[in-house]
Amino acid sequence: MSCQHTSPQPINLRQKFALLTERWSPRVVAEMNDYQFKVVRLQGDFVWHSHAETDEAFLVLEGQLHIDFRDRLVTLNAGELFVVPRGVEHKPYAEQEVLLMLIEPRGVANTGDAGGEYTAPNDVWI
Amino acid sequence: MSCQHTSPQPINLRQKFALLTERWSPRVVAEMNDYQFKVVRLQGDFVWHSHAETDEAFLVLEGQLHIDFRDRLVTLNAGELFVVPRGVEHKPYAEQEVLLMLIEPRGVANTGDAGGEYTAPNDVWI
Repeated sequence: MSCQHTSPQPINLRQKFALLTERWSPRVVAEMNDYQFKVVRLQGDFVWHSHAETDEAFLVLEGQLHIDFRDRLVTLNAGELFVVPRGVEHKPYAEQEVLLMLIEPRGVANTGDAGGEYTAPNDVWI
Repeated sequence: MSCQHTSPQPINLRQKFALLTERWSPRVVAEMNDYQFKVVRLQGDFVWHSHAETDEAFLVLEGQLHIDFRDRLVTLNAGELFVVPRGVEHKPYAEQEVLLMLIEPRGVANTGDAGGEYTAPNDVWI
């Protein structure tokens, strides 16, 4: 099978974050089938929103991320993973800066159904 | 929307690895749509195999993982992500123990098309 070639390079997440200064603006670092891995730098309050069509996975790489739900609060530290179920309203916020990886299908907008000024351009790679 | 309830808890990956002593035996820690997040503890040589139907994402959490391809070698250190394209033969190996997270669709066997003694039970949670 010497005809097989693989093109992707390993993705160093720390190096990707070093290139990313903007907050609340996810950048794609890799794709797996029709899913994307995105890095995002967060601090402060995001908007309440939900994603009707998909779950959304959060993996905290540095810092402490809070996710408000209508019925409770979830707090994620570095090395913790959480999957927000589809259709469930949530509002991320962070007192100090957080480095986060998102995993979700291609085409998901960061503000989901809410829109507004925090809506970031989609499918931007870093 | 006070009717919304969310049941999952945050998943601490280090705590999951503390429960997992067996090597080469992926354990599911979370699901996102029809995808699964799996933790796996590796050391030594795995078998050559491929997955005809899907890409497969590797995120190294601790240690150094080598992935042999027919045309090259990829080395992943902690904090590095790599997506093995569907249908591409690969053989992971690690000189020292590696803690790895796999992300792939539900139902993917660890040995893909190869089968054999390293084939782990699928869909086992930890």
